[in-house]
Amino acid sequence: MAESSHPSFSNANREIMEATTRALREHGYADLTIKRIADEYGKTTAAIHYHYDTKDELLAAFLDYHLSQFDATVTAETDDDPKSRLFDLLDEMLVAPQSHREFLVVLFQMRSQAPYNEALCDRFHQSEARVLTVLEDVIDRGIDTGAFAEVDSAHVARSIILIVDGAHSRSVAFDEDALETGRRLAHEYIESVVLAQSE
Amino acid sequence: MAESSHPSFSNANREIMEATTRALREHGYADLTIKRIADEYGKTTAAIHYHYDTKDELLAAFLDYHLSQFDATVTAETDDDPKSRLFDLLDEMLVAPQSHREFLVVLFQMRSQAPYNEALCDRFHQSEARVLTVLEDVIDRGIDTGAFAEVDSAHVARSIILIVDGAHSRSVAFDEDALETGRRLAHEYIESVVLAQSE
Repeated sequence: MAESSHPSFSNANREIMEATTRALREHGYADLTIKRIADEYGKTTAAIHYHYDTKDELLAAFLDYHLSQFDATVTAETDDDPKSRLFDLLDEMLVAPQSHREFLVVLFQMRSQAPYNEALCDRFHQSEARVLTVLEDVIDRGIDTGAFAEVDSAHVARSIILIVDGAHSRSVAFDEDALETGRRLAHEYIESVVLAQSE
Repeated sequence: MAESSHPSFSNANREIMEATTRALREHGYADLTIKRIADEYGKTTAAIHYHYDTKDELLAAFLDYHLSQFDATVTAETDDDPKSRLFDLLDEMLVAPQSHREFLVVLFQMRSQAPYNEALCDRFHQSEARVLTVLEDVIDRGIDTGAFAEVDSAHVARSIILIVDGAHSRSVAFDEDALETGRRLAHEYIESVVLAQSE
């Protein structure tokens, strides 16, 4: 993983995050322990606790580490044509290479714990607020240029996130066609509700 | 809970299912043990194991117990107007009374484990196949009567499930407005893509 994508993580932090990824892949979220992370890290649990007091603290850092990668794919670029930019964003959010897929399985396990864990819940909110802002900006630009209808941009942005999220959540759980269903649904929705209709 | 909704569950089975519901509510899925279910049941773990050999077997029965309730809300009724029937189905699937909400939190925790547990995965597939069939039948009837456009009914059914699922998944995790966003998105989608457009 490129260092530049995680400027706030030291080498030791990064190694612990990668060890956590491997431990989660092998044991799943429900059976994750500091001991198992330490085994993957090749050091003692004390070496982990030197960096992270609690498992919750480590998991919050783990989310930051991976969500910053996801956020990096959704960046605002203000000089593109809003229509093609919106479809590009959609494609970026609905592509799931195999490496990403393993993280998604873990992500949704962690999110299912969000009702019990305020720190995780805050992390998900922050990450999502950034994506929503980017989407809303593109939609507002499209309305301004006349490419889009006079839609409620906040609602459309939330609807797109819901489709992307539903598609990922289903694709990791049990529905192999969910990403393709989500892509097609999102295109139909944007084409018939969001784009300016020629009279 | 009415006995009639679970004809295949004995009184003891039902009591264990209700004890499991309470144990999950209190401890969450990741910390659920047979001991904790037995504590809620007011008997020993041996009394649980008399009915269920393993925790996985108990959890599969637990899913059957609750999914049969959800399935009961989505029943085929072939004599209604397809358009109002489709919107009724949507409203039924997107309503979440507080009692149901607690089950949903647990449901999505269990589903996040589906990649690791084939029995759970099968249960989710079976439950969903029934709902998809009901939706496809209504859409096909709407196409036949001319109320709906000539859409791909299998794709539209999967899209509606994706929206309902994404809305529930987000609403239990951290997005309080997700059910309302999902309802509005589904209505927009059906009105502009599924219903026959007057020329």
